[in-house]
Amino acid sequence: MKLCRLILFLSIFSFSTFISGETKYYDAAQFPLIGKITNDTETRYERLPSYLKGKTRPPVWDLGKNTSGMAIRFRSNSTSISAKWDLYQDRTMNHMTATGIKGLDLYAWTKDHWQFVNTGRPTGKSNEQTIIANMIPEEREYMLYLPLYDGITSLSIGIDSTAVILPPALDEPDTKHPVICYGTSITQGGCASRPGMSYSNILMRKFNREFINLGFSGNGQLDFEIAEVMAKRHDASLFVLDFVPNVNMKQLKEKTANFVRILRDENPETPILLMESIIFPHMKFDQSIQQVVLEKNTALREEYQKLKQKGYKNLYYLSSDNLIGKDGEATVDGVHLTDLGFERISEKLYQAIKRIW
Amino acid sequence: MKLCRLILFLSIFSFSTFISGETKYYDAAQFPLIGKITNDTETRYERLPSYLKGKTRPPVWDLGKNTSGMAIRFRSNSTSISAKWDLYQDRTMNHMTATGIKGLDLYAWTKDHWQFVNTGRPTGKSNEQTIIANMIPEEREYMLYLPLYDGITSLSIGIDSTAVILPPALDEPDTKHPVICYGTSITQGGCASRPGMSYSNILMRKFNREFINLGFSGNGQLDFEIAEVMAKRHDASLFVLDFVPNVNMKQLKEKTANFVRILRDENPETPILLMESIIFPHMKFDQSIQQVVLEKNTALREEYQKLKQKGYKNLYYLSSDNLIGKDGEATVDGVHLTDLGFERISEKLYQAIKRIW
Repeated sequence: MKLCRLILFLSIFSFSTFISGETKYYDAAQFPLIGKITNDTETRYERLPSYLKGKTRPPVWDLGKNTSGMAIRFRSNSTSISAKWDLYQDRTMNHMTATGIKGLDLYAWTKDHWQFVNTGRPTGKSNEQTIIANMIPEEREYMLYLPLYDGITSLSIGIDSTAVILPPALDEPDTKHPVICYGTSITQGGCASRPGMSYSNILMRKFNREFINLGFSGNGQLDFEIAEVMAKRHDASLFVLDFVPNVNMKQLKEKTANFVRILRDENPETPILLMESIIFPHMKFDQSIQQVVLEKNTALREEYQKLKQKGYKNLYYLSSDNLIGKDGEATVDGVHLTDLGFERISEKLYQAIKRIW
Repeated sequence: MKLCRLILFLSIFSFSTFISGETKYYDAAQFPLIGKITNDTETRYERLPSYLKGKTRPPVWDLGKNTSGMAIRFRSNSTSISAKWDLYQDRTMNHMTATGIKGLDLYAWTKDHWQFVNTGRPTGKSNEQTIIANMIPEEREYMLYLPLYDGITSLSIGIDSTAVILPPALDEPDTKHPVICYGTSITQGGCASRPGMSYSNILMRKFNREFINLGFSGNGQLDFEIAEVMAKRHDASLFVLDFVPNVNMKQLKEKTANFVRILRDENPETPILLMESIIFPHMKFDQSIQQVVLEKNTALREEYQKLKQKGYKNLYYLSSDNLIGKDGEATVDGVHLTDLGFERISEKLYQAIKRIW
């Protein structure tokens, strides 16, 4: 009898070992997706509500298909994690990595924080990659960040065929009181090396709280219909407004107060943080850009002061001073942040948000 | 007479203003190139001496065509700086920006340090880009870093047609006592967002001293003919050996001592710094990689101790401890450093090298 059991055990063990190299895929649709402003979307992996199709400006609608700020939550005891994903555009840019534009980025909950595991590197419109292998087979909670500057039309998560994958058991990050970030290409995550390194995703980990990304590259132009979408999230714990690089002076003066009012009318107490444009490193040399940015930052401060004078409470202001360091090294192109820049701005935002809360 | 002068002045002024938009190009061949181990090369913009063609392994020879660590020095009073450059391969990678692989990166000497100006972003095999515009027309000293992971077959620098471009007047960085860095893809600069952010280029600025880059992606395998090329640079102030990720245990044990001996025989006093492999962030999960890396680092320390016991002087050792921080965020793919990782490792290397000198 004991011999039989031993033989049975050994044969199961050998069999498991033998097939541990096989990967079984599970559609990610069955696992929670965090970082969405609304579930009323045309497909699962996009940011804007379907009723805005044909109503918001076409570039805003199209950028809504980018999955910046979204992450799939699951748990598994697999020794390896793989992914298959199909891209919306298979976009390329010359100052951002493919991993950042359209890759995946896996983190695991480790004791008390989210720890980087590894990246899913894209190879074409349809991708299949082993993200990590050779792990101790113990249950872990995972967060898989989606592309920052492209969309996905499908996503499956692969595990050892002998392992299990389940919805998360932990409610981390906290999704009850999300922070909603509105803004530009920088807000959207340009030019992080991988999805986890945009500032909203770094802050999601630092606070262990859901951050929803409404950065629209080149198009953070204070479209009121976006403010209306944001205003409906009465559970928001903070609105971060980081649009200055994308508006001209006329837009800034005409639209800032209205955009804030739309948020405030529906959310009387929720803190709102107005951010100045970062000081672009190449402004040290380009006098024309320097003048434009400094004038817009001054105008933003005036808008803020006018709103305060009108009696707006819980309205906060973040100066550009030292947001990305002063050594000039935080960007890839004078404007867009690298991981170094995102780490710096996240730390400043972390301190600013802690003071607000 | 005064009126005539005024009219003349105004007409020259208007004329200059009118044509300041035109760019005139100058072949960079007439300006000093720093970061080369030898001038005995097949073409100007490559790293290895021509006699190694057909002698060193083909991938090493080919990677020698990458211009990592090289920079053109010039000065100009132009309000704009442009560049035309033709690439050797027009290579792409999915975890490194095109700007880092094959772009240009301009710095200017500002009071007492090298300050980032802006990046030349590649668009194809032949490129023409305005790097910076709208500057105050005053003479500045410039350093233009060349691609990290591709080569160039030609380079011209463009200035306002009314401006002048000249060889540098300042002998910065110091080229009399270069540091020579040998190693891997990480040494070569993978995956910096732009050429100025590889660790050898960051250190070039921190020390204001020439650093010569002999990083060979995947091929820092202790080829003795490379040590022989390095050994001929009797003016070197330091040899940095950062090869561990590219050698297997057999290569490490068989070749480290010989590689060091080749350098030492020709350079009895020059400091030599042996670096452990960085602790790859994904090692926290991938047990197999963890074991391999820790064993190789232990073996390197043993090689170092044996050399010390043999009486080698001015031999230094840099442990992997905390070289890239411990938060797991310093890489794009678990292995290759982002600008955040390069900033961190540069600071540790800066401290280590200051202790040596």
